[in-house]
Amino acid sequence: MPIVMRRLAMPELRLDPLRNEWVAYATERNDRTFLPTEFCPLCPSGTDGHSEVPLDTFEIVVFENRFPAFGPDRRGGRPVRPASTGCEVVVYTPEHELTLAQLPADRVRLLVDVWADRYRELGSRAEVAYVYIFENKGEEVGVTLHHPHGQIYALPFVPPFAQAELEASGLHLEEHGQCLHCSELSLEASGPRAVLAEGSMAAFVPRAARWPYEVHLYPRRHVVSIAELEEAERWDLARALLGVTGMYDRHFGFSTPYVMALHQAPTDGQAWPQAHLHFEFYPPHRREDRLKLLAGVELGAGTFVNDTRPEDTAAQLRKAAAAPAERAPRKSPVTQ
Amino acid sequence: MPIVMRRLAMPELRLDPLRNEWVAYATERNDRTFLPTEFCPLCPSGTDGHSEVPLDTFEIVVFENRFPAFGPDRRGGRPVRPASTGCEVVVYTPEHELTLAQLPADRVRLLVDVWADRYRELGSRAEVAYVYIFENKGEEVGVTLHHPHGQIYALPFVPPFAQAELEASGLHLEEHGQCLHCSELSLEASGPRAVLAEGSMAAFVPRAARWPYEVHLYPRRHVVSIAELEEAERWDLARALLGVTGMYDRHFGFSTPYVMALHQAPTDGQAWPQAHLHFEFYPPHRREDRLKLLAGVELGAGTFVNDTRPEDTAAQLRKAAAAPAERAPRKSPVTQ
Repeated sequence: MPIVMRRLAMPELRLDPLRNEWVAYATERNDRTFLPTEFCPLCPSGTDGHSEVPLDTFEIVVFENRFPAFGPDRRGGRPVRPASTGCEVVVYTPEHELTLAQLPADRVRLLVDVWADRYRELGSRAEVAYVYIFENKGEEVGVTLHHPHGQIYALPFVPPFAQAELEASGLHLEEHGQCLHCSELSLEASGPRAVLAEGSMAAFVPRAARWPYEVHLYPRRHVVSIAELEEAERWDLARALLGVTGMYDRHFGFSTPYVMALHQAPTDGQAWPQAHLHFEFYPPHRREDRLKLLAGVELGAGTFVNDTRPEDTAAQLRKAAAAPAERAPRKSPVTQ
Repeated sequence: MPIVMRRLAMPELRLDPLRNEWVAYATERNDRTFLPTEFCPLCPSGTDGHSEVPLDTFEIVVFENRFPAFGPDRRGGRPVRPASTGCEVVVYTPEHELTLAQLPADRVRLLVDVWADRYRELGSRAEVAYVYIFENKGEEVGVTLHHPHGQIYALPFVPPFAQAELEASGLHLEEHGQCLHCSELSLEASGPRAVLAEGSMAAFVPRAARWPYEVHLYPRRHVVSIAELEEAERWDLARALLGVTGMYDRHFGFSTPYVMALHQAPTDGQAWPQAHLHFEFYPPHRREDRLKLLAGVELGAGTFVNDTRPEDTAAQLRKAAAAPAERAPRKSPVTQ
């Protein structure tokens, strides 16, 4: 079972009145550890060691982020409550050089359990409205430590993209009696944008993908959160996560950077029957040697311009999904 | 007066059902001209020349983008109508090496007129719901041509961020009888986050800034679009645009990359009394030697984490705004 360590931190939240959205301020982060070359704070350093993990070894470890983006709720000038802090780091393995795509299936299976455990535990806190689980992989998406790890933010609000999905799916449920995600799945799981299937799990390029190689991975069964997945589904999910990340590495020919985001039901005490657990993957590459950089249209208007057709990228990814695994993908040749 | 040339193009729009947002597909763009080193397609090439501007010289020129992101409305399977295409490039000067910050005031004054003209002309088309004017400056925000220029997208929908602002400001107008932007201006124009003023124009770091050095520039008078600005306001705006862009260059000590986005009233035929013209600037740097890279929280949840306090960055920018102009800012030292 994972070990959880706690640290104190005090970021601040402010409401942007123009878009009615929360913005987080974490000024200590501007000087945070940046790609250290000699010492990895996520490697086990032994019981006398000085890394974040003073252990001889571990399977998966969870601890609270030293440079958190979210902390005790200070919006209302309320007293600081360390117990409500929730910015956690999930270290996938003690082995520094691996990536999620290279882990054994039983380790990824354990990771699914860790996520389910953290979703339940953090989500049970009264002040936590949304448990946001994600992974940033690669310098291209701002990673400051290469050791394989993900993050969990326990948010005191439902973030904008989750909110938008819940609204759209809620309307769809009212009008059609079915969750929007279930409807999309039935279209996509076997259509021209399907990329891989693993028993109870299906992955596809969504028809209105924002990122050139965006992939969504769903449990076929309607489950609102990762905590609801059954034993067999957790194994399928572990294999599907290895399938998607390995597919990217084989397609690009290098260890592919990505953002992996879990969308699921808020934990604010309301019922969210229109939520449907899924993973969204956004690799920043638009070609092997070019990144999709966000600019004026995406950043100033909120509209994405995608230079690739989802049907074309899905066809490429299907081919990579079916290809034999490579041993040691080389590093990404571009940082821009 | 600007010269307008037209080209045919056929991008595609798809609705993302999950967030109920349009995504644009422009597959020809993936092979678009990328930082050519010997030939600049935006320099005047003479009347026999092969650049996009076959002229001996010009003041400001506007032409239709060869690699547009938006084109004839194909959402409903309607016939292609080239007349509705509206992705324009605005070249600020024939001088390749300049930036907006280095233009003479009367050229920027002419640019304001060009924007007002394009807003009116493109906005008068029945199929154009929003005229989105912006500039991407620097390789850090994906610029593929260094010649000083901006862009105008004539969109068949109101984009998400404009929509969110209109909703928030509409509610505020109902509740308080005043546009939200006017309320914010009265707080910010002389407060701890003010950075510069130029007669009828005021610039500040918004209190819930997403980007470390984000600045918003407003006309103090409630005008819904750039077309409503009067003569004296247009001169003030020209000087304020030089003020903000020059301030960035002096603060960072190099020609600072940024996204500049104009937010104003939609042109869909409805009345938008809650709209208030303003410019938003997002430089990607969080320090002289580090970029703010968007990652899992921004891209997967829609929530920004800012490593700086708006009051601190405003104080730094005020100092730079008051400093004497530098001659030749050096190039940005980082691309990551």
